[in-house]
Amino acid sequence: MLRQKAFKGSKSDGYAIFDPINLTYFTGVSGTSALLIPKDGESILFVYGTNYEMAKAEAEGFKVERVKSGEKLMDRVANQAETLHAKHLAFDTLDVESWQALAKSFGDKSKLTANGSLVRDLRKVKDEKEIKFMRKAAELASLGMKVAYETLEPGWKEKDVAAEIEYAMRKQGSDGTSFETSVASAANSAYPHGGCSDRKIREGDLVVVDLGAKYKFYCSDITRTLVTGKPSDKQMRLYQIVQEAYEKAFETIRPNVKGCDVDGAGRKTIEEAGYGEYFVHGLGHGVGLEVHEPPTLSISSKDILATGNVVTDEPGIYLIGYGGIRVEDTVLVTKTGAEKLTQAPYRLGSR
Amino acid sequence: MLRQKAFKGSKSDGYAIFDPINLTYFTGVSGTSALLIPKDGESILFVYGTNYEMAKAEAEGFKVERVKSGEKLMDRVANQAETLHAKHLAFDTLDVESWQALAKSFGDKSKLTANGSLVRDLRKVKDEKEIKFMRKAAELASLGMKVAYETLEPGWKEKDVAAEIEYAMRKQGSDGTSFETSVASAANSAYPHGGCSDRKIREGDLVVVDLGAKYKFYCSDITRTLVTGKPSDKQMRLYQIVQEAYEKAFETIRPNVKGCDVDGAGRKTIEEAGYGEYFVHGLGHGVGLEVHEPPTLSISSKDILATGNVVTDEPGIYLIGYGGIRVEDTVLVTKTGAEKLTQAPYRLGSR
Repeated sequence: MLRQKAFKGSKSDGYAIFDPINLTYFTGVSGTSALLIPKDGESILFVYGTNYEMAKAEAEGFKVERVKSGEKLMDRVANQAETLHAKHLAFDTLDVESWQALAKSFGDKSKLTANGSLVRDLRKVKDEKEIKFMRKAAELASLGMKVAYETLEPGWKEKDVAAEIEYAMRKQGSDGTSFETSVASAANSAYPHGGCSDRKIREGDLVVVDLGAKYKFYCSDITRTLVTGKPSDKQMRLYQIVQEAYEKAFETIRPNVKGCDVDGAGRKTIEEAGYGEYFVHGLGHGVGLEVHEPPTLSISSKDILATGNVVTDEPGIYLIGYGGIRVEDTVLVTKTGAEKLTQAPYRLGSR
Repeated sequence: MLRQKAFKGSKSDGYAIFDPINLTYFTGVSGTSALLIPKDGESILFVYGTNYEMAKAEAEGFKVERVKSGEKLMDRVANQAETLHAKHLAFDTLDVESWQALAKSFGDKSKLTANGSLVRDLRKVKDEKEIKFMRKAAELASLGMKVAYETLEPGWKEKDVAAEIEYAMRKQGSDGTSFETSVASAANSAYPHGGCSDRKIREGDLVVVDLGAKYKFYCSDITRTLVTGKPSDKQMRLYQIVQEAYEKAFETIRPNVKGCDVDGAGRKTIEEAGYGEYFVHGLGHGVGLEVHEPPTLSISSKDILATGNVVTDEPGIYLIGYGGIRVEDTVLVTKTGAEKLTQAPYRLGSR
């Protein structure tokens, strides 16, 4: 398996995976508890009874071992590492108390190394199969946004619009949402993660719709801002600033560009229009098995983009008490530039 | 705030919270990054820009501080702890790398103590407000199950049944699902977490429907097993064993009973019927802000039930290649016994 080759150069004799999402990354299934990847030989997947049979049937290329109720997982992992002659063991992530249990069982704390970046770096670059799943997740999100445009009318509750969006995506094959759907209207839209409430949407409200679908564990993420009825001059002016920031950032996305520079391209537009302090988050984030993952596009990002990264481009302006505006797509970094995976019209009026 | 009083007896001068769910438990909002609770004085809530304004508006009783992009959260927490004269700091949970960063900033590793059980123990006992939210979440799940009974017909895709369930719960006010809805038919139902696929349900299939709604961050969890059409004798026999195990376990649920004894009461019924090895998981788990949390009802559980615990009762039999059967409710431990929060008919035939 290609992914396991990435560990060959490491100084450790083995690598242990504990993070649930990293486990899904390597195994293609959910609900497993640990994976031990030795330098040579077969990897061992540890699974409790509930998910043991499913893992055995669906996780290919692993020796699947059952962990019994009450059995200590860290003891099992340490014992197997010993059997496999792994004296130096690296691991992706562990909470302090589990790490203490593993160290006790493993004997020598100094030969246990936390190294989260190895898997984080692998996950940043999506392979063909992952991109296929992400295209489908993005297609479902685009459909969800189409339904938002068709549904939104004054008098609708925020939550009811979310219900229509999620239902349509589910009917077309979505495995669920990649985060809590936001249909945030009027003052609620001034919070970037505004969620949705029982508030009834009124004519002229700004409505930030932020949604994503999951497909085979992979996420998508899209935002549009809509106004029910005719947008006001102020709404239109704010929208045009955000739309331009989105375009400026998009134009910079290609391999070898710094994450902070993509952020800078979008941020500059908003700052020059006088709204810099109201753009309260980074320009974007990586998307994959998690909806927020590396690489990051922000002021302080040290990431450098590479072919196969998938990131969001999502500038916004948030005026507390008035409302917010954000435009967002999920974007694939290609050899020559960038490709939008999510698609929906760019316009402020809902019709 | 009552919950903060729980820390007063601890040997530390302060308690830091990092787990996102624990943060929601204390603050009532999501998207915050750390909470510092000193022995005396005001607690400080650390929030990055994206969610700062929302936290400031909605998290009552905290001093809310904004963390800037690129700023190191662990440095901020350590500095504030120093300002507040907290020399011994306990924390709920941290991954090893973040803990190392905090220790470096805090100066003395030996005065930093991981203590996850303090908050875990608090969260086990639900207060009145939490029970109110959980009743609503359970009511929504019961509605979802009603829709499952009404919808399930041969020819329906598993995923489409899930779509109807989730849509109905959303329209009645659900904030989303508490886990991936399972509509697992025929051989798929033999996996306890079977999920749902594009498989079309056929007459006579066993279908395990496992679903939950969220309301104000709180979860619910219910399972019924349905057969489209007339159940076979074998299906009925298996169902009766599971239903009896469910009842036997339910009868034992009350304060001061051991988690392992509730499991034992259900398990004994299944073992005596000759299916012990096919009941591959614990009898139940706690439910609250997470759908799986303490206390645990399993062979190896050391938990002792108390008034205000909310747990599931969910025995099952899983025959690989044939199918599975499970019955589950979310149950509140009361002063005198137990009360079912989820409600749906107990029957195997779908009509």
